[in-house]
Amino acid sequence: MRKINLIGSTGSIGVQTLDVMRSHPEEFNLEALSFGSNFKVGIEQIEEFTPKLISVQSEAIAQEVKKHISYKAEIMHGLEGLTEAAVYGEADILVNAVMGRVGLEPTIKAIQSGKDVAIANKETLVMAGSIVTALSEKYGTRLIPVDSEHSAIAQCLHGNKEKEVSKLILTASGGSFRDLSREELKHVTVKEALNHPNWNMGAKITIDSATMMNKGLEVIEAKWLFDMAYDDIDVLLHKESIIHSMVEYIDGSILAHLGTPDMRVPIQYALSEPNRLDLKGGDRLKLWEVGTLHFEKMDYDRFRCLKMAFEAGRAGGIAPAVLNAANEVAVSLFLEGRISFLDIEVFVEKALHRHTPISNPSLEDIVSADKEVRSDVLSYLS
Amino acid sequence: MRKINLIGSTGSIGVQTLDVMRSHPEEFNLEALSFGSNFKVGIEQIEEFTPKLISVQSEAIAQEVKKHISYKAEIMHGLEGLTEAAVYGEADILVNAVMGRVGLEPTIKAIQSGKDVAIANKETLVMAGSIVTALSEKYGTRLIPVDSEHSAIAQCLHGNKEKEVSKLILTASGGSFRDLSREELKHVTVKEALNHPNWNMGAKITIDSATMMNKGLEVIEAKWLFDMAYDDIDVLLHKESIIHSMVEYIDGSILAHLGTPDMRVPIQYALSEPNRLDLKGGDRLKLWEVGTLHFEKMDYDRFRCLKMAFEAGRAGGIAPAVLNAANEVAVSLFLEGRISFLDIEVFVEKALHRHTPISNPSLEDIVSADKEVRSDVLSYLS
Repeated sequence: MRKINLIGSTGSIGVQTLDVMRSHPEEFNLEALSFGSNFKVGIEQIEEFTPKLISVQSEAIAQEVKKHISYKAEIMHGLEGLTEAAVYGEADILVNAVMGRVGLEPTIKAIQSGKDVAIANKETLVMAGSIVTALSEKYGTRLIPVDSEHSAIAQCLHGNKEKEVSKLILTASGGSFRDLSREELKHVTVKEALNHPNWNMGAKITIDSATMMNKGLEVIEAKWLFDMAYDDIDVLLHKESIIHSMVEYIDGSILAHLGTPDMRVPIQYALSEPNRLDLKGGDRLKLWEVGTLHFEKMDYDRFRCLKMAFEAGRAGGIAPAVLNAANEVAVSLFLEGRISFLDIEVFVEKALHRHTPISNPSLEDIVSADKEVRSDVLSYLS
Repeated sequence: MRKINLIGSTGSIGVQTLDVMRSHPEEFNLEALSFGSNFKVGIEQIEEFTPKLISVQSEAIAQEVKKHISYKAEIMHGLEGLTEAAVYGEADILVNAVMGRVGLEPTIKAIQSGKDVAIANKETLVMAGSIVTALSEKYGTRLIPVDSEHSAIAQCLHGNKEKEVSKLILTASGGSFRDLSREELKHVTVKEALNHPNWNMGAKITIDSATMMNKGLEVIEAKWLFDMAYDDIDVLLHKESIIHSMVEYIDGSILAHLGTPDMRVPIQYALSEPNRLDLKGGDRLKLWEVGTLHFEKMDYDRFRCLKMAFEAGRAGGIAPAVLNAANEVAVSLFLEGRISFLDIEVFVEKALHRHTPISNPSLEDIVSADKEVRSDVLSYLS
């Protein structure tokens, strides 16, 4: 029985984490749960999984939860509550499924409390990869990937030796606009951008898929999760997203992970590894029905956000945090209809050019750079 | 340093085994070597690798070797010599790369002498899978696959648990005639049949690829190597042969092994596993250059030899040995121009119908069935 703390329970990954736990009640128990403001979904989750600690975004929502809950539990709110939910009790694993940079501190606190962290929160490693991995080593805890690409890589690495790896190959679907020229990209709408061909995800990550920034953030995550040099991480266009990612070994062997686009598979593996559990109610991949898989070399001029992510990753220091913050603001502005699709990369590029590099930044440096960049990017609107 | 006995050194697998050993002289040493009658290639191998024991097919060739060899070695010949080369000295591994049923006894003797056996000799497991695997268990030795498909599966299984496997998926290129209808198959020539689209192999195995009997024999081998039920072994048409085979797990994850069609990769893995060694001088797979991979459901009516192999495997006893012997003779007759391509399956089917089943056959039963079927099949020529 693994004891789990879940933060970000009402988002897409959170909901599917609970799906996995529901289908294997003998394997998993929910100790603590946190969500923001989706009271309707949250209260149902609480009643079903009866966590001992619950945290929500505001005191008002906490009061609502208190009114509706049918059993005795500790109810908290705000950042303090979020962190308490992350480190609570004797949980073995924190599943960090919150969106955005608010996910960073709970990861750090969970590591310091000796917990393994299943990371669906990209910011944790993109902003503070060197700090988080060093802490994880210091406290002897593990960082477990949840993204389908990183889970695929972890599965292809399992049982093999690190020194025998020659390359990680992340696959990229190319997102909503993979077949458009840069000229055509000038006039795309928010609605078109939100229409991802393979995966059904939140708005931010769907836009990040279309700009390929999502793949760039995944490259930075992969660097930290698997301790690889950027030169040894490749990205391959593979529009069907059937091969989730690959590992090339020194003997020329490539191991790949294939499957349907079902996020429960990597989530379940994150919770059960190194064991595997039956996947209940999911379709199995039938390659003969898919018929054809396509692969193309990545065009870094076409996908400039991906190129910038590699550059920011190689620059190191606070550059990846700057990239991430600028992108988050620019995507919001695009979703609000205030800037065009191609302005996203222009804004990110500007932020990267304007920032003052810091090598070996502290967590405070990173958090303060994040804050500064956010207000700086807004000023580009003028 | 692993010590290796190699039998069948001048065939395609034998030559490539020595290529692998040559490229890693610090890892491997050749203790004993055996070949048939290819004196020219054999004597070069002997002078280069200086094995302490050498065996050849006939006394006459043995005399020739004695005349030409520049160092002191034990030189033997015939079946006795072959078996001595297999069990010789303190070798860790026998690489069994001989063709045909003569490879069976050396495998058994090597197991009884406590050696692991890297099996490129199909007959070992097809004819006597239950006997060989039981012996291997009894003597605590390992059977290591050399075929690219089985090596792929072994690599996809490595580090995972047997009970978590739901399916083995062998890929099949479809061979020389994959795009022809059964009507068109009536008139194909030997020359056309020998023109395999992906792999450069010997004549027998190239014809077996065209009839898909090769895949059928591989299914039977997979059953024994990985202790799987026939119901859990699938065959998938994949004409590019880039995915060498796959394993599906209970959680819906599929792990696949990909690579260029370079037999040195599985041979090297067989000699080095669970470690991997650098592949010297080989091309790396570039999926973007391949561009497209195709998959089709297997049509068992189109490929009747594959269907018969499954049936013989499921029937068990001596049926797989009968299938193998009948096929070997029928393929020879086709290569000699004495029967048509489609007659191969007709002859095999006839032999399977005519044989008297024996359950739990002894090695003697198997060897004698093999012999009887060979002369029986010749009688179909009338």
